[in-house]
Amino acid sequence: MLNTPINFFEKLGQFQDQWSPKVIAELNDYQFKLVKVQGEFVWHEHAETDEAFIVLMGRLKIEMPESTVELNAGDLFVVPRGIQHKPSADEECHVLVIEPRGVVNTGDVGGDMTAPNDVWL
Amino acid sequence: MLNTPINFFEKLGQFQDQWSPKVIAELNDYQFKLVKVQGEFVWHEHAETDEAFIVLMGRLKIEMPESTVELNAGDLFVVPRGIQHKPSADEECHVLVIEPRGVVNTGDVGGDMTAPNDVWL
Repeated sequence: MLNTPINFFEKLGQFQDQWSPKVIAELNDYQFKLVKVQGEFVWHEHAETDEAFIVLMGRLKIEMPESTVELNAGDLFVVPRGIQHKPSADEECHVLVIEPRGVVNTGDVGGDMTAPNDVWL
Repeated sequence: MLNTPINFFEKLGQFQDQWSPKVIAELNDYQFKLVKVQGEFVWHEHAETDEAFIVLMGRLKIEMPESTVELNAGDLFVVPRGIQHKPSADEECHVLVIEPRGVVNTGDVGGDMTAPNDVWL
């Protein structure tokens, strides 16, 4: 455990499902999650926390009420707490999400795209 | 502010000094810091927090009392709180460090390698 780093690309090779974050590490009470995304997600917010997105492969769009950001590999963006946002990606995109343990992917919106939480890879 | 992602490589092009972390973003009370490292750092620990390292370029060695990890680009490693560690790199290595705001690079050890904290890029 304490002598092996976690490789993002090796972990990404271990699952195929989209919009279903997999926890790969914890930092205090924060989690690092890998997620593969494609198509449109739902508008949602996280009232209690900021949410960090790092794109590892592909192109991620994050729409917010007053702006839209487009992230490529090597880009980081932090969605502030309480800001509505809708991620989407034309082609499959691989993302590292960093946020406190327990945050649900769809916030309080629920629906079909709500993924099981705290699923470790 | 809310329409521009932060690109790691663009930010890395904006400084040259080694072992001197630059804050590029915050996630709640956590900070994302870029740092260029080469040579040997000092043994130290952070008693109150884990510390995450993501290697963006090069090869980072982290010695701990009972194990050593070697990270290449795309690797993540979390040093648990209270664990002594000594980072080093034979060639210049570019690292993204994630930890709570206020963590000093040398922990409580001090010395010449202690960098100013909370320096934004």
